[in-house]
Amino acid sequence: MSAVHACSDPPFLLKTKTAKALYDQFASKQPIIDYHCHIDAKEIAQDIRYENITQIWLRHDHYKWRLMRAAGVEERLITGDATDREKFDAWAKTVGRAVGNPLFQWSRMELKRYFGYDGVLSEKTADQVWELTEVALRRKAMSAVGIIKQSNVELLCTTDDPIDTLVWHGQIDENPEIPFRVLPAFRPDRALNIEKPEFFEFVEQMEDACGHSIHSIEDYFRALRVRMEYFAEMGCRISDHGMERFDFEPAPRDTINRIFRKRLAVMAGTLPEEEIQQFKTAMMLFFAETASELKWTMQIHMGARRDNNTAMTQVLGPNSGFDCISGGDIIPSLSRFLDELNSGGKLPRMILYSLNSNDDALLDSLAACFGKDTESAWITHGAAWWFNDHEKGIREHLASLMSSGYFPAFVGMLTDSRSVLSYVRHDYFRRIVCDVLGQTVEDGLFPADSILLGEIVKDVCYRNTKRMFDA
Amino acid sequence: MSAVHACSDPPFLLKTKTAKALYDQFASKQPIIDYHCHIDAKEIAQDIRYENITQIWLRHDHYKWRLMRAAGVEERLITGDATDREKFDAWAKTVGRAVGNPLFQWSRMELKRYFGYDGVLSEKTADQVWELTEVALRRKAMSAVGIIKQSNVELLCTTDDPIDTLVWHGQIDENPEIPFRVLPAFRPDRALNIEKPEFFEFVEQMEDACGHSIHSIEDYFRALRVRMEYFAEMGCRISDHGMERFDFEPAPRDTINRIFRKRLAVMAGTLPEEEIQQFKTAMMLFFAETASELKWTMQIHMGARRDNNTAMTQVLGPNSGFDCISGGDIIPSLSRFLDELNSGGKLPRMILYSLNSNDDALLDSLAACFGKDTESAWITHGAAWWFNDHEKGIREHLASLMSSGYFPAFVGMLTDSRSVLSYVRHDYFRRIVCDVLGQTVEDGLFPADSILLGEIVKDVCYRNTKRMFDA
Amino acid sequence: MSAVHACSDPPFLLKTKTAKALYDQFASKQPIIDYHCHIDAKEIAQDIRYENITQIWLRHDHYKWRLMRAAGVEERLITGDATDREKFDAWAKTVGRAVGNPLFQWSRMELKRYFGYDGVLSEKTADQVWELTEVALRRKAMSAVGIIKQSNVELLCTTDDPIDTLVWHGQIDENPEIPFRVLPAFRPDRALNIEKPEFFEFVEQMEDACGHSIHSIEDYFRALRVRMEYFAEMGCRISDHGMERFDFEPAPRDTINRIFRKRLAVMAGTLPEEEIQQFKTAMMLFFAETASELKWTMQIHMGARRDNNTAMTQVLGPNSGFDCISGGDIIPSLSRFLDELNSGGKLPRMILYSLNSNDDALLDSLAACFGKDTESAWITHGAAWWFNDHEKGIREHLASLMSSGYFPAFVGMLTDSRSVLSYVRHDYFRRIVCDVLGQTVEDGLFPADSILLGEIVKDVCYRNTKRMFDA
Repeated sequence: MSAVHACSDPPFLLKTKTAKALYDQFASKQPIIDYHCHIDAKEIAQDIRYENITQIWLRHDHYKWRLMRAAGVEERLITGDATDREKFDAWAKTVGRAVGNPLFQWSRMELKRYFGYDGVLSEKTADQVWELTEVALRRKAMSAVGIIKQSNVELLCTTDDPIDTLVWHGQIDENPEIPFRVLPAFRPDRALNIEKPEFFEFVEQMEDACGHSIHSIEDYFRALRVRMEYFAEMGCRISDHGMERFDFEPAPRDTINRIFRKRLAVMAGTLPEEEIQQFKTAMMLFFAETASELKWTMQIHMGARRDNNTAMTQVLGPNSGFDCISGGDIIPSLSRFLDELNSGGKLPRMILYSLNSNDDALLDSLAACFGKDTESAWITHGAAWWFNDHEKGIREHLASLMSSGYFPAFVGMLTDSRSVLSYVRHDYFRRIVCDVLGQTVEDGLFPADSILLGEIVKDVCYRNTKRMFDA
Repeated sequence: MSAVHACSDPPFLLKTKTAKALYDQFASKQPIIDYHCHIDAKEIAQDIRYENITQIWLRHDHYKWRLMRAAGVEERLITGDATDREKFDAWAKTVGRAVGNPLFQWSRMELKRYFGYDGVLSEKTADQVWELTEVALRRKAMSAVGIIKQSNVELLCTTDDPIDTLVWHGQIDENPEIPFRVLPAFRPDRALNIEKPEFFEFVEQMEDACGHSIHSIEDYFRALRVRMEYFAEMGCRISDHGMERFDFEPAPRDTINRIFRKRLAVMAGTLPEEEIQQFKTAMMLFFAETASELKWTMQIHMGARRDNNTAMTQVLGPNSGFDCISGGDIIPSLSRFLDELNSGGKLPRMILYSLNSNDDALLDSLAACFGKDTESAWITHGAAWWFNDHEKGIREHLASLMSSGYFPAFVGMLTDSRSVLSYVRHDYFRRIVCDVLGQTVEDGLFPADSILLGEIVKDVCYRNTKRMFDA
Repeated sequence: MSAVHACSDPPFLLKTKTAKALYDQFASKQPIIDYHCHIDAKEIAQDIRYENITQIWLRHDHYKWRLMRAAGVEERLITGDATDREKFDAWAKTVGRAVGNPLFQWSRMELKRYFGYDGVLSEKTADQVWELTEVALRRKAMSAVGIIKQSNVELLCTTDDPIDTLVWHGQIDENPEIPFRVLPAFRPDRALNIEKPEFFEFVEQMEDACGHSIHSIEDYFRALRVRMEYFAEMGCRISDHGMERFDFEPAPRDTINRIFRKRLAVMAGTLPEEEIQQFKTAMMLFFAETASELKWTMQIHMGARRDNNTAMTQVLGPNSGFDCISGGDIIPSLSRFLDELNSGGKLPRMILYSLNSNDDALLDSLAACFGKDTESAWITHGAAWWFNDHEKGIREHLASLMSSGYFPAFVGMLTDSRSVLSYVRHDYFRRIVCDVLGQTVEDGLFPADSILLGEIVKDVCYRNTKRMFDA
């Protein structure tokens, strides 16, 4: 149909000359520090190979699974017993029609970057893409380490449970073939979730991990402290906390001890909501204070409501594509939490995220209320997260940040991904940053000072994060 | 003043060539299925004629009334005893200055489409427009049926109370002069509102409508079931529920029965809020489960706060222009409601709306957590509703949908209107859809594949809805 | 670096020809009525002079302080004992890199407008700007009165405590050298805040100000009424209320009296939250009803959470840059408040603001539910406030207002500033208004009728506010 004219193909996401120049000269050249991802350290340590693209793309990525379900793909082709090729075909058909969805762009970018494929994956090109990726994946450069290496990654942080031995991190560290650093990040969500049936099991595992028994909250804190110090020895500089709900309810230490002991004693019982929140508050204060002492950065992820679909979660477990954004006012509790830490001189560097993008300006404004003398953006609003990590979400996040804060201090991008191909998301982010800056300059709203702009681009894409890890 | 240059008059809302091509070749040619409107079936059955444009535009449209009030028009010229011409003049003066308001665009589109008028309604053109519309309305083609027919409507759904006899729907069905289908939609808000003084009267009316007395919740469910089956016989495939507030509070059947019987016994009493929510939860579960059995689609409209102005509501009744958007977190209760239905295998196809556009991404993310194997978008976020049904609102709604979901499965537009002239809103929506798609293609973010794009446009503008009714 | 091309320098913020024409011919020529600012009347009465730009820019502007803190400037250079020049240098370095922040634009506009400087303030230009501003500030035209005069200000309203003697307003009124009017605005936040330790002190001050003792709520109302009448005599036409939290909890007069007397009796005690809200509700009803009688406009500012950082607030006091946006649903209480006043025929003209821009559409929709016959926009949503007063925030505010309301009735801009240089914000706002209108016209969505557009521009930039004060 001739009336729909050919794709004009501008440089991807870069609409102005200034944007293009900033990208070419600065953004594209920066190394990547991916301070929050879900890659398995074992995959890197063992430098695993992939037989086909389904193994990278579709084995764990519940983000893709959601899109396939929305498109009416049968579950057998998503998480069921279909072959890798059948699953790939179902994905190809889905993504090829997913206009406006970031998965369309990411898939295209990944095929271009790692497989040299210029086309678009769809039902029509599925055969071609399957074959070319299958061939390419046989190459050594396409192992886990190979892919990360060619992505110009300098450092990545995995996401690790307190009881993790970090044995793979140790092996990676000693392996001269791996040119990038892989550090653990401390993610003690299980330590917080006193209301969950698995809590008791976690405490037992902690006893094993630390070699002392846990009967009181002091024992528990001591055990967690031991693990945090071990993580620190292994190079950990950052922690991460998922807070589905966070009511700041401080309580005396003996109240917390009573709650903790009650929970240990009555394994099957349920705690009243108030006690759960008191316990979580105590734990978050403990983690923050310890992070402050160890000079860690603390990440807090809020605004997600997980496992909404009980029936599917029972079959597939958590992280299977049944999470959503929740509303509610996160500011009062968060403000009181920061204030309590700040008043005690124990406020660690923090990165705050909300899955609810309505919180963007609220978080930007709250972050600016707390800091540390001579430190820029001590408390900062992290990059557009998960369901917001698309062009619109990133643009809105940047606009809010720029409008109410000091953009050059922004700590920038992370992948939050399970897949080694996801490093294109840093490129996606950098292009949008350059496009926003370029438009600002070309609208006459900032000087066309390439040195200054270059410094800002380098800071936001790489150097601010590097400073965070060097601090 | 020569310095303000002439209106460049691009094809209305279509900014790119691709947009224009998609509109001309696909969108503009699709029939209309208007699955949610407030046209009175009697108006169609009797094929009523309109003496003048005020009778169509200003007799019931409280949306226009609000704008006139905001413009300082005296109430006499809005809902008072002024003549039709006086009211029209007041409207012309108001709308002619209402820059940026969708009523300006819709008025212009309606005058162009149904009256061939190329100008803009304002104080200056009021005489001319009054006369030309008066003349035009004498033509047979401008009767209720004539206007709907020339709008290329294939099917429309009215909004009907459970006790409605649907007599006019029957007459329409048998009338060979009416080429489009008019189906009822089941709207049992009165059945839910146990806290309202009119509830008792509704139960009595239900007894009459069903021919059995109602003493227990089982009687009540049975009576509603009788009406739903009758609606189904009359072709109903869709229900609709307005939820000003929805706390999911499931309770045992005998608790619900006790609440129901207490309410029937003490006609003037008030129920505690918890019992009201328990009752509403039980009713919503009943309606959803029955919709699932009857293979209906269930619409839920949330986020409105109605009748804020007591003084004016006492004079003019509900739906007079005194409603607003409410905030609050709708997700937890909605999630639990969907989960309960899904766990029981009784989740009907659903379309969710919130008047609070801050809920857009939240609803998109929740909808993707529930589905039915092999069905696309089983739970879906409906088109930008009421106060959001304007260019900005539609664009934001589409952007959210595309960014986090599978756009080709979107069920598309509805008018939600009392006026037969409102079918231009489908055109308004389709133009924006084509403009968004066209921009995406011309920005190089989707292939300029006209066949694929055409399929998507046809699906979103017509075929997805058709499939919903054919299913 | 040549690849980053030179700034194309379009007319600042005016992207289309129509926008430019509207600005040049209409917007730029309107006088300013600044109905809400924080300039000290004494500064005007004494026609103070400024030794250097730090005294104007950095002595009180906690908005600039926040940005400096986010940039990692040490507190000594912000609020500490550093010299004015050191503070200026720290600011220059910060603002010169603050891409996308409104302070960058405002600084540039202020330097251009009042000092004729065409460049951009940064580390590199700090010396030059310091010197040129120091020289310029020696001129008589750069006194407080001189700056306001050259800004084409016709009327400004300060923000005044009920006990203020308004002595400086009297002096200004009698000074023939001051060509603009300076009226007080009544801001009784202290009268409302029964939960604060300072409340008792405020009541004592009120006794002194009114000359009668205060033992009951009736005494208290009588005292406030005396002050409001005094303010009215001094020309006051507007009041202003900051509501950090507002739960509408009406209670009988004797309940309120009991709460008030209890608070006076037990100076150190704390009231239960319910009683605090009952008291505040009674006070707000009193202020609104009295405003209605005095024909004042009542401003309500919601959605701020102040003094989040206790440690810094203890050192620097309130209004030091530690405030943030809060969430939560403000609609139900606000609706009931307006309804109560409206039902009693005592609804004053109101301007509603929320610091949470997620409330924009909610407030627009609520405002349209209440009015006064023949008055346009009796209840209206005020201009983008504080953290939202930037290009993005203003555009979003206007888009919401236009999409759901009658734009020509909008009451327009205010500075909300402590600085006499901030009048450029009216220019900033007017440019954006013209740009939005220009784009609407050039997109073919409104007639290129320069007379009509000119009327709308004049109304929104000046005349609506003038009518409010002339009413």
